[in-house]
Amino acid sequence: LRENNVEEFRSLFFELHPYDQAKFFLKLDQPDRMLLYQILSPEEMANVFENIRDDKNRYKSLLEEMHPAFAAKMMEYMYADDAADVLSELTKEKISSYLTIMDAQTAKSISELLDYEQFTAGSIMTTEFVAINANYTVQSTMDLLRKEAPDAETIYYLYVIDEEKHLVGVLSLRDLIVHEDDTLIADIMKKKVYSVSVADDQEEVARKMKDYNFLALPVVDFQHRLVGIITVDDIIDVLDEEASDDYSKLAAVSDVDSYDPNAVSAAKKRLPWLIILLFLGMFTAGLIGQFEETLNKVATLALFIPLIAGMAGNTGTQALAVAVRRIATGEGTSERVWKIILKEAGTGLITGTVCGIVVALTIFIWKQKFFLGLLVGLSILSTLTVATIAGAFVPLVMHRLRIDPAVASGPFITTINDMISILIYFGMATLFMNYLL
Amino acid sequence: LRENNVEEFRSLFFELHPYDQAKFFLKLDQPDRMLLYQILSPEEMANVFENIRDDKNRYKSLLEEMHPAFAAKMMEYMYADDAADVLSELTKEKISSYLTIMDAQTAKSISELLDYEQFTAGSIMTTEFVAINANYTVQSTMDLLRKEAPDAETIYYLYVIDEEKHLVGVLSLRDLIVHEDDTLIADIMKKKVYSVSVADDQEEVARKMKDYNFLALPVVDFQHRLVGIITVDDIIDVLDEEASDDYSKLAAVSDVDSYDPNAVSAAKKRLPWLIILLFLGMFTAGLIGQFEETLNKVATLALFIPLIAGMAGNTGTQALAVAVRRIATGEGTSERVWKIILKEAGTGLITGTVCGIVVALTIFIWKQKFFLGLLVGLSILSTLTVATIAGAFVPLVMHRLRIDPAVASGPFITTINDMISILIYFGMATLFMNYLL
Repeated sequence: LRENNVEEFRSLFFELHPYDQAKFFLKLDQPDRMLLYQILSPEEMANVFENIRDDKNRYKSLLEEMHPAFAAKMMEYMYADDAADVLSELTKEKISSYLTIMDAQTAKSISELLDYEQFTAGSIMTTEFVAINANYTVQSTMDLLRKEAPDAETIYYLYVIDEEKHLVGVLSLRDLIVHEDDTLIADIMKKKVYSVSVADDQEEVARKMKDYNFLALPVVDFQHRLVGIITVDDIIDVLDEEASDDYSKLAAVSDVDSYDPNAVSAAKKRLPWLIILLFLGMFTAGLIGQFEETLNKVATLALFIPLIAGMAGNTGTQALAVAVRRIATGEGTSERVWKIILKEAGTGLITGTVCGIVVALTIFIWKQKFFLGLLVGLSILSTLTVATIAGAFVPLVMHRLRIDPAVASGPFITTINDMISILIYFGMATLFMNYLL
Repeated sequence: LRENNVEEFRSLFFELHPYDQAKFFLKLDQPDRMLLYQILSPEEMANVFENIRDDKNRYKSLLEEMHPAFAAKMMEYMYADDAADVLSELTKEKISSYLTIMDAQTAKSISELLDYEQFTAGSIMTTEFVAINANYTVQSTMDLLRKEAPDAETIYYLYVIDEEKHLVGVLSLRDLIVHEDDTLIADIMKKKVYSVSVADDQEEVARKMKDYNFLALPVVDFQHRLVGIITVDDIIDVLDEEASDDYSKLAAVSDVDSYDPNAVSAAKKRLPWLIILLFLGMFTAGLIGQFEETLNKVATLALFIPLIAGMAGNTGTQALAVAVRRIATGEGTSERVWKIILKEAGTGLITGTVCGIVVALTIFIWKQKFFLGLLVGLSILSTLTVATIAGAFVPLVMHRLRIDPAVASGPFITTINDMISILIYFGMATLFMNYLL
């Protein structure tokens, strides 16, 4: 199709939305892609490249198959934040080799973006925004907008700065068009501007944007000078990333979202977790080994090991999930930690009592053994209480120690709770052995 | 503070962003809120009310403490989709009693929104959009915009419709301002319009908006007539909801995000899951009970029950999480199900082999028992393979049966895999009993 008629292909291709162009591009094999680099201009290719955000791991190999001059030109045409995103996947040497053949000013703004630490507002912001002065009129602002519209990432918010580039006001395009041509910007701008600092965590920025329903947020440096903006589309990606990150960690997979072409690559991602969990499991086995004598006397005890350990794991995961989400939504403020733990202890006590009674009755009816039922019931009661507290306590403490609480992933809490539950169960069984025989 | 000086309070209050006004409002106790209803106009209150989206469960009680006429007036001033959202929490009778005292036209559009099924595009769209005709000029469109700007939810996309209200084009405000005043809309509009149908699932709409970076999407009915728009802020809420929904189900808590004022309400949410899991756990206990004779002979076998069951649970959860996310991002297309299962089988075999060898060696060194190590190693190998396949297979089948795969939550898969692993472990132990003694 493509080789026959370049013109026809081009017209078909440009009818597609850039996102679909990118999807099409990624499906091509290498020779076809090489052909495309010749058919499309760097500017057109930039549009395609900006839309392969979901497959960041392919940036590197794609760049390498392009002619360096073409690649550099293409990145010049990309929004600075997207270009920085692409380059951040490369080595330091590669980056500077691309930057040196770019237009000096673009190279400068890209390399500034690359300097910001990962996951901060600075690293996701773009420098293509529209800034105006307070002494502009509506008319002169509109004139400026018409000129800058093709380059700016959004023109729906206009930021007002003073001579030192300090952010002093904000104005939406909506405000602008409803006012008379000769109105002074100073008279209609909002002086209370919500902004974030370059060093703010991207998750905080995302929360703010979501709560306040902004389409863009200005980013200021430590001297409160406007240096960039973050637009809502970047924030959607951040929220999505963070959510799937929490999800991955609860499931103990390194990265649940990236595509695995084959079984080996999938296995590689899961094995490190599994091996760690395997050794934690060996500890549990060792722990039960300490009670081998008890087990030899009453083998029936083994029947309820998975039940008790499983319940401890489940309830711990519930408490963990609630705590992790509470922290993620910013509700985990420090003063209330003890109140939260106390509440979780209450929750554990209630669920433990109910489950304990249910299990004791079931075993009593099933096995006709009163003391065995009592033992398992009491173990469930104490295990659930302790496991619930552990599930909530561990992430909250990690959060205060500034470790991402989501790394206290489901299986870890589960394994810890396995051990606690076995200690409680066999401990009690050994103590009250006389009643069980 | 507030009782002393109404004027001062009002001026302070309106300096706040509506989201902060809402936060402040929610912190007040009832008498203070009653006072606020007298100080604020229905229109001002509408602004506050639109921003308590995160606490939907309070809508009902708040509405009930207001004077019905005030409440109805307030909902008239709210965006139709937000008002419908508030009303959807009430009983049918309550809803119609509010609608009858509202302005007829507003009542009509709100009740139409209420008719759409939950979680569809229709239920989250708003009817306050700007629609124009193709024969308008840039100038006449700008005049219209100036008039409609205060009411429309977004003015950054303008939708072009024909006489039968069919959607025929789209135009961004950006396109509009860069063209001359006398340009005809027909000449500058994009004829290829991305739209969604009222019946589309909200998650699909969210994906589309995220992938294509739209700020708004038009919603059409079955005759392709424009009936509403969905804006990006609503979509952020949808994405957040869906992500926390998947997360909750992996952790087996009904709703991880809603706030629990006390331990009882938290326990109520977790108990149903725990009781179900408890009875599933009893099955596991019964299953081990079938092998009590084997256990009586070799009590050491009990040591590795939690290890094997735990590993099965972990690997199953990993496979489950990957499958659920794959479905959520729309990659779970039907043709590839068998390829996915095959790949997961491969992954299970690899992880199983590695973990099996590690565990066999460890037990051999630790316990000096060759056959025990071999048994546990082989159990891990087969368990991990089966558990990985089960973890991937169950959600994929559920998806094809049109059941939300996320309800195959972590603990369920874990319990099923517990049982499979015990059957494999004790089955093999019983078969090769002679070597173990």
